[in-house]
Amino acid sequence: MKRILVSLAVIGLLAGAAEAQQAKTIAVSVPTADHGWTGGVVYHAMQEAKALEQRYPGLKVIVKTSPDAAAQANALEDLTTQGIDALVVLPHDPNVLTDPIRKVKQKGTFVTVVDRIADDHSIYDLYVGGDNPGLGARAAEYMKKAMPNGGDIVVIRGLPIPIDKMRVDAFNDGLKGTKINVIDSQFGNWSRDDAFKVMQDFLTKHPKIDAAWVQDDDMAVGVFEAIAQAKRTDIKFVVAGAGSKDMVKRVMDGDPMMPVDVLYSPTMVAVAMDVTALGLEDKIPVRGDYILKASLIDKANAKDFYFKDSPF
Amino acid sequence: MKRILVSLAVIGLLAGAAEAQQAKTIAVSVPTADHGWTGGVVYHAMQEAKALEQRYPGLKVIVKTSPDAAAQANALEDLTTQGIDALVVLPHDPNVLTDPIRKVKQKGTFVTVVDRIADDHSIYDLYVGGDNPGLGARAAEYMKKAMPNGGDIVVIRGLPIPIDKMRVDAFNDGLKGTKINVIDSQFGNWSRDDAFKVMQDFLTKHPKIDAAWVQDDDMAVGVFEAIAQAKRTDIKFVVAGAGSKDMVKRVMDGDPMMPVDVLYSPTMVAVAMDVTALGLEDKIPVRGDYILKASLIDKANAKDFYFKDSPF
Repeated sequence: MKRILVSLAVIGLLAGAAEAQQAKTIAVSVPTADHGWTGGVVYHAMQEAKALEQRYPGLKVIVKTSPDAAAQANALEDLTTQGIDALVVLPHDPNVLTDPIRKVKQKGTFVTVVDRIADDHSIYDLYVGGDNPGLGARAAEYMKKAMPNGGDIVVIRGLPIPIDKMRVDAFNDGLKGTKINVIDSQFGNWSRDDAFKVMQDFLTKHPKIDAAWVQDDDMAVGVFEAIAQAKRTDIKFVVAGAGSKDMVKRVMDGDPMMPVDVLYSPTMVAVAMDVTALGLEDKIPVRGDYILKASLIDKANAKDFYFKDSPF
Repeated sequence: MKRILVSLAVIGLLAGAAEAQQAKTIAVSVPTADHGWTGGVVYHAMQEAKALEQRYPGLKVIVKTSPDAAAQANALEDLTTQGIDALVVLPHDPNVLTDPIRKVKQKGTFVTVVDRIADDHSIYDLYVGGDNPGLGARAAEYMKKAMPNGGDIVVIRGLPIPIDKMRVDAFNDGLKGTKINVIDSQFGNWSRDDAFKVMQDFLTKHPKIDAAWVQDDDMAVGVFEAIAQAKRTDIKFVVAGAGSKDMVKRVMDGDPMMPVDVLYSPTMVAVAMDVTALGLEDKIPVRGDYILKASLIDKANAKDFYFKDSPF
C-alpha cells in the first residue's frame, strides 16, 4: 500500500509539471572495465543510471559494456534496433566507431560522445570530455611552484596518440623559462606494469631524480612500486593524473610523495548522461561541446573528488 | 491531506537515494529584461528555477534581475551575504562584473558564468555560452547553399565588441571562394530600431539586394519592417540568429523570407542552472567550459526550438 501511494504521488507530481513526460530510453555504451579508469567509467555509469531513473520517472537507462571496438559496434546496432531516444557512448576506438555512431545519429537518435572522438565531429550532438592540454599545464604549474630553484625530472608518457601529445606539449610549454629539466621521457602506455618497467630503467640510468610526471594514476602505482623496490629517497614527489580513489586518498592524507593529482575523471560519463537526460526531459537545447576542467586536486579540496565506493 | 502524502512520499524517495540531500541554495543573477533576448533569459531562468525546486527537494533557487551593471554588483553582494552554495550569473557588462564575481568565488561559492566573460577566466568554475563563430559560420553555409550562383547581400552587425567580430569573421570566412558579395555592412547595435534605420538606408542606396544577414532576431524584426515599408521584392530571404519565438514560428510555418534561423538561445541560462544543480546534488565534478551549438533551425527541426510560452 505504501508503495502504491508513493507511485501515485510521483504521478501527481509529474502531472503538476508543465507537460506530462513521455517514457524515454537512454542507452549508455562503454568499454568493459579493462583498466582502472574504465572500471571507474562502468561504476559511475551504473550509479548515474540508477540516479536518473529515480529522478525522472518514466526514463529507462540501459548500460551496456563491450570488450572491444567490434563488439561495441554490434552493441550500438542492437541498442538502436531496440528503439532508443538517446545514446551516450564512450568509444573504445573512435576511428573504428565513427561509422557505427554516425548510423545511430542518422536514425534521429540524440548522440552524446564521451572522451574519445576522431576527426568527424558531425557524428555527435553533444560531446563531453576532459581537458587534455589542461592536464599537462596543471602538472607543469605545480612542478614550477614546488621547485622554484629547478630540478631534474623524468616523464612517463601514455601512448603515441594525439591525447598524449596534447598533454605533453602543454606540459613542456608550462616548463619554459624554468630551471626544471626533463632528463628522460618514455612511453608507459598508460599501463601500471609498463610504467613500473620504465621507472626501473630510469632509476638505473639516473643517479639523481627530483620528481616525476607520470600522466596517469594507474601508471603512478607502478612508479611508486619501482621507487620502493629501488629504495631511492632522492625523488621528492610524483605528479600523476585522473583522480583515482587511491591517489586522491594519498593527497587527502598528505602523503609527501603525492602532494597533488590532476583531474581527468571517469565521472565524465555521469555528467554526459545527466546532460543528455536534461535535454530529453527539460526539452531545452543542450547540443554542444562540454570540456571538463583538469582541476588541481590538493589536500584542501581532495574530499570533493573522493568516491569511496568506486573501484577506481 | 493529499499534499502531506505527496510530501511524505517525496521524502521517502529521497531517503532511498544513496545519500540524504542537504538543503542547498542557488542564486541566479541576470539582467532585467531590457530587450528580447534578455526577456527570454528571465523567462527561462524563472521556469528552470521552478523545475529544479521540484526535481531536487530541499533545493532553493533564487532568481534576481538587475537593471544595470552597478545594481548587479550590489545584488551579488546581497545574495552572498544571504548565504548561497552556488551562483549562476549572466553579467550585464563582464568587465564591470569581473571583480564582484571574483569576490563571490573567493568565499568558496561555486560560480557559473553564462554568455559573457571578460579576459579573466579564473573567476568561474563553470562557463556556459553560445558558439559565436558558429553563428556566423552556419549563416554563411546556408547562404552558400541557397545562392549557388552567388548574389549581392547586406550585413547588419551588432555592436563593435569581440562577440560581433567573432561572428562576422566566421561569416566572411564561410563566404570565401563563393560569388556572394557583401555590398554593404553597418552596425545595428542588436537593436530593432537601429536595424530598421540601417536597412532603410541600405534599401535607398542599393537598387538590388538578394539577401540579408542580420545576426539577431530582434534586428530582423526591424529589417522586415523596412522591407515591407519600401515594398521591395528583390530581397529573397533574411538569415538572423538567436531562436526567438516569432522567428522560429516563421521558419516552422515555411515563410520564404525566413527559411532558417541560427540558434543562440536564452535557454542557455537554464542549461547553466541545470548543470550547476547537478554538480551540487550529484556531487560529481562539473567544472569546465560548455559551449552550446549554433544549430541551424529549419522547417524540419523548428518545433524543437519553439517555446510557445516564452516572451522571446
